[in-house]
Amino acid sequence: MTTISIIGSGNMAAAIGTRAAKHGHTVELMNRDTAKAQALADRIGNGATVGAFGARPKGDIVILAVLYTGAVEAVAHYGEALAGKIIVDITNPFNPDASGLVTAPGDSASQQIAAAAPASAKVVKAFNTIFGGVIAEDKPLDAFFAGGDAEAKARVAAFLESLDMRALDAGGLDTTHALEWAGILLVGLARNGAGFDLAFGAQAP
Amino acid sequence: MTTISIIGSGNMAAAIGTRAAKHGHTVELMNRDTAKAQALADRIGNGATVGAFGARPKGDIVILAVLYTGAVEAVAHYGEALAGKIIVDITNPFNPDASGLVTAPGDSASQQIAAAAPASAKVVKAFNTIFGGVIAEDKPLDAFFAGGDAEAKARVAAFLESLDMRALDAGGLDTTHALEWAGILLVGLARNGAGFDLAFGAQAP
Repeated sequence: MTTISIIGSGNMAAAIGTRAAKHGHTVELMNRDTAKAQALADRIGNGATVGAFGARPKGDIVILAVLYTGAVEAVAHYGEALAGKIIVDITNPFNPDASGLVTAPGDSASQQIAAAAPASAKVVKAFNTIFGGVIAEDKPLDAFFAGGDAEAKARVAAFLESLDMRALDAGGLDTTHALEWAGILLVGLARNGAGFDLAFGAQAP
Repeated sequence: MTTISIIGSGNMAAAIGTRAAKHGHTVELMNRDTAKAQALADRIGNGATVGAFGARPKGDIVILAVLYTGAVEAVAHYGEALAGKIIVDITNPFNPDASGLVTAPGDSASQQIAAAAPASAKVVKAFNTIFGGVIAEDKPLDAFFAGGDAEAKARVAAFLESLDMRALDAGGLDTTHALEWAGILLVGLARNGAGFDLAFGAQAP
C-alpha cells in the first residue's frame, strides 16, 4: 500500500493505475492535459488524485507511461522534480513497423531516460513485455524487470508482487535492451497467431 | 514420425535427439568426430544412426546443434549437401559475458546461416529460448520459432508439436534477431534468481 505516481493517461496508464488501485495503492495521475488525467482519475477511483505535470510526484515509484518518443522529453521537463525517485520505464522503442528497435545496445530507452534524469533517480524497466489488456485483466502473471540499482529493483519487485505478478529480475541496466527486444518478440507472436491477449512468462517445468 | 538429422553431439544435440527419439522420430547424428556421434547415438538408442559429417543428411529437417562460432563454417562445409533441407538454427550468438549479442539487426545468426546455405535450403530458428535441461525433461512447454519460409515453418511447427511443445510463430527471418535477444534475457533471468531450469512461455490469462 503506497502512492504510485503515473505520468501519462493512455491505455498503459489506465491498465497499471486500475490494477494498482484495485490492490490498495493510491494512484496519482499526471498529464500535460490535466482534464485527461482527471478523467482517468475519476475512472480509476479509489482515491486517485491528479498532480500537475512537471511537479514533484507524490509517489516514490513513478511510472513513466508515455510513448517512447516523448519519454526523454517528459523526464527532462520534470528535471529535479524526479530527484531520488524510482522511474519505471515501460516504453517499447519500436521502429514504425515494429520489426526492430530504434534503440541500440548500451543506449536503450531506459539508458536514455537514466541519462536525462537526475543522478539520484533510478530507472527500472518493467511492464513492457505484457500487453495492456492483460495487465487490466488483473490475473496472476509473470513480470520481467531490469535496472541498475538493487534497492530500486527491490521496491519495484515488491510493487509488482503486490499486483499479483511474479516479479522476475532479468539483470542490470544493460539488460533493459534485451527487454526492449522482448517487446518486438511479443508483437511478433501476437501478429502470427498468438493474439494480443498475451504476456511473456518463464516456464520451469 | 520422420527422420531428424542433427549436426553436433553436445548438450543441445543430446536433449533434442533424446526427446525426438522418445516421440517416435528416427535420429541421425553427424559430427566431425564420428566416435562422439556414435556415443550419442548409442545413448539415444531407438534406432539412432550416425552419418558422415558433410554428407547429405537423411532428414528433411536438419538441426544445426553446434555453437554459433562454428555454425556458418559447418553449413559452408556441407554446401550443396543441404540443398532443399530445412536448417533449424538453435544458436545463441552471445558475447563473452552473455550481456549482449555479437550479431546485429538484419545480420542475425540465422541470416548468416541462410547466406551460407544453398538458396534452396530454408532456415528456421527454434529451441534457443529453452535451456537444454528443460528440453530433456520432456514435459509440455512453449517453443518459439521464426523464419522466412512458410512451408519450412509449418514443418518445424509440426515437429515441435510432435515433441509435446506448443509451437508459437514469432515471425519472419528478421525476427530471428529478437529470438537471439530472448536468449540473453533468458540467461539474465536464470542468473538473477530464476535458475537454469527455465524456458520462455507465452501467457494468455
